[in-house]
This record gives sequence, structure tokens and C-alpha cells, in this order.
Amino acid sequence: MGTQGAEAPEHTPQSASGQDPRKRPRRRGEALNAAIFEAVLAELEEVGYARLTMEGVAERARTGKASLYRRWPNRGRLVMDAVYHVLPQYVDPPDTGGLRGDLLELFRSTARLLEGPAGEAMRGVLGEVLHDDETARQIRSASRGTGVAQIRQVAERAVDRGEISSKALTPRRLEAGQAVMRHHFLFLGTPIPDHVGEEIVDEVVLPLLTTPPGG
Amino acid sequence: MGTQGAEAPEHTPQSASGQDPRKRPRRRGEALNAAIFEAVLAELEEVGYARLTMEGVAERARTGKASLYRRWPNRGRLVMDAVYHVLPQYVDPPDTGGLRGDLLELFRSTARLLEGPAGEAMRGVLGEVLHDDETARQIRSASRGTGVAQIRQVAERAVDRGEISSKALTPRRLEAGQAVMRHHFLFLGTPIPDHVGEEIVDEVVLPLLTTPPGG
Repeated sequence: MGTQGAEAPEHTPQSASGQDPRKRPRRRGEALNAAIFEAVLAELEEVGYARLTMEGVAERARTGKASLYRRWPNRGRLVMDAVYHVLPQYVDPPDTGGLRGDLLELFRSTARLLEGPAGEAMRGVLGEVLHDDETARQIRSASRGTGVAQIRQVAERAVDRGEISSKALTPRRLEAGQAVMRHHFLFLGTPIPDHVGEEIVDEVVLPLLTTPPGG
Repeated sequence: MGTQGAEAPEHTPQSASGQDPRKRPRRRGEALNAAIFEAVLAELEEVGYARLTMEGVAERARTGKASLYRRWPNRGRLVMDAVYHVLPQYVDPPDTGGLRGDLLELFRSTARLLEGPAGEAMRGVLGEVLHDDETARQIRSASRGTGVAQIRQVAERAVDRGEISSKALTPRRLEAGQAVMRHHFLFLGTPIPDHVGEEIVDEVVLPLLTTPPGG
């Protein structure tokens, strides 16, 4: 949604200019988004969510503030998009050949992610959601369903291998493990010990995915 | 912890006084706590967490601010104690005679609770936990285990009736349903539609409690 546009013309050098220093390279679509999202993560790590600004992100990404506001109405939406769109590639779970191995890897990497800039982003965005109804509405409408994509991928591989029944892949079952992990993160903080992820896999996710509904 | 003391002497009328108007009744232990906790809930409903103060609670409970600070180091701890100690009596689930009926009642009343002052308290306390490490440490150390007490009670009744095996009552299994409900509440807000609680019961809690570990 609105993430496909090119940079604002006023922020690219005049094509009529003789020397063309191009301090701000003209980028479109994916390349520009990637630069902006990387800048968001770097800012999260360096200054934290509370002091992250649209100006700071624009400067680091070498683009203009107007380019950011054209795509994202506020920093909450920007930060959320950055976390959702950039980080999943790092946690794409390796195919270990078995459901339990895949799940353990997935929850281990989720724990590591929550301890880094993604966790800082979630704390910050949730803080805004909890205090401001208008921001909350915008952010909520964009966040539906993004949390279960990876576990669905792992579960569908298990269905393809004949390990589990596709009937067990209901939305609430798929959501439960991540909900318990986030609940731990939000209420008990970081670091998240390895045994937490293992317990979630063995006590919650595996039983849910290996028991067909009504069973 | 520190909730058993009497009110601060400086806030009770002088016993040497002839007329003794007793605008502030001298109360101890349970009675004083009950008045304070009720005042907290009333303040949550009336002014919200953001504008709740120790002064406001003390005034409403007709006690002194010093009495509050002697027991609770900050409003986060006070509010959390108020919610945990006063509200459980309202959500003590009726014994419907069956596990599914008990769980449906429990999650229905949890949803209604989160839509009221208890939800406002959770939003507020969590907001502080997310932004202030010192408050977070204090609050976290007090909150462990309180969330699963009710579901454990319901599950143990089902064990006594022979409906389920006691082996299924592991901490993560007992925690999962409430984690999904709170996750919904925090990220998607209120009101919480009835079908959410039903899905959590049928897709998450019942499968987890009816499948023994290793099953």
C-alpha cells in the first residue's frame, strides 16, 4: 500500500545541472524501500524507538522526509512495515526435514529477533497502540495475519511430508505459539532463555499441530 | 508483601481530640486494602491509567498518601495488585459440570474484564513495563504465575471428574489460552467478540488439555 512510488522529485538533483553530484541517488520501489527499512532498523538499534524520528530515518536513508510521509502516515506504521518486510528473510526457517526441528529453529530465531531491533520496534509500536486510539486503528488494520505466516509455512511443509493433517492448521492453532512467545517477551522481557522456545514447541505448538480438530 | 500494616498514624484523628470527627476511619489490613483497591478501580474507570495518581487514590479511599507508599513503591505495583487481588472474585468461573462449559465461561468473563478497568490497568501497566526498566523489574517479579491460577482451577476440576489427565496440566499448556486472549486484546483492542473466546477454547485450550504430553 503506497510503497511502490519513486522518490519525491524535489529530492533528486536537477537533470539540467551540469555537475550532478547525486548525493541522493534516485531510487524507485524496492531499492528505495530497502534503504528506508535498513535505516529504520539501524535507528532502532542506535537511538531506540522513543527517539526515532522520520527526519533521522530520512537522513540515514539519504532521502527526503516527504518521501517517507508519502508512504507512511506516522513512524509507527513505518517501523512496523520495516520490521515485517525486512526481517522475515532472516528468520526464514531452514528446512531441517522434520516438523519439530523446523519449529525449534523458528522459535529460537524468533527469540533472538525479539532481543534485537525488532523487539525494540514491537515494544515501541505497542506502546503507541496502547496509548493512542487513532494510531492504534491504523497500525492494527495493517498488522492482521502477519505473525502467523512463518509458522504456516513450516506447518504446510509438514503436511506435504505427510507428518500432520492439514485439518490442524486453523488460524488460532497457528497463532498460539507466537502469542505465548510474545506474551513472555512483553511481560517478562529479554533475554529469552532457550528453554522457553523449547517448551512452547513441545507443550503448545506440536500438540496443537498433531491433534486434528475434534480429536 | 507489605499489605498487612495499619494506616499511618498521622492520618488518623488524635485520640486526645474531644470531638473525634473521624472523617478517616481507622482501618487495618484487609479492610484498608479493600478500600484502596476499590478506589484504584474507580479511578481507572473514571480518569484512566494515564491520569491515575497516588493522591487521587488516597483521597478516594479516604486514607493518606503515605499509607499507599508504605505498601507500594509506585502506581504500577499498586494498580497491578488491585487488579489481581480484587477482580479474581468476579471471574471465579461457575462450575458448569463440564470442562468446555467452564472454559467458555472463563474466557467470556475474561473478555468482559479486559474491556473494563482491568484492561485499562493492563494497558497502563504494560505501557510502563515497556518503557522503564526499573519499574519493569519490580512489576515482573510480582506478576509471575498469577495469570494461570483460574484456568488451573478449571482444569483440576476436570481432572477430578476424570475428564482429562493430570499430565496435560503443564505450565505452558495452561498459559496458552490466556496468552492468545491477551495477545488479541493488546494488538487488536476491544471490544473482544464472543467468537474469539470460543475459538480459543475449541482450537487451543481444549486440544491442549485433552492431549497428554507425548500423545
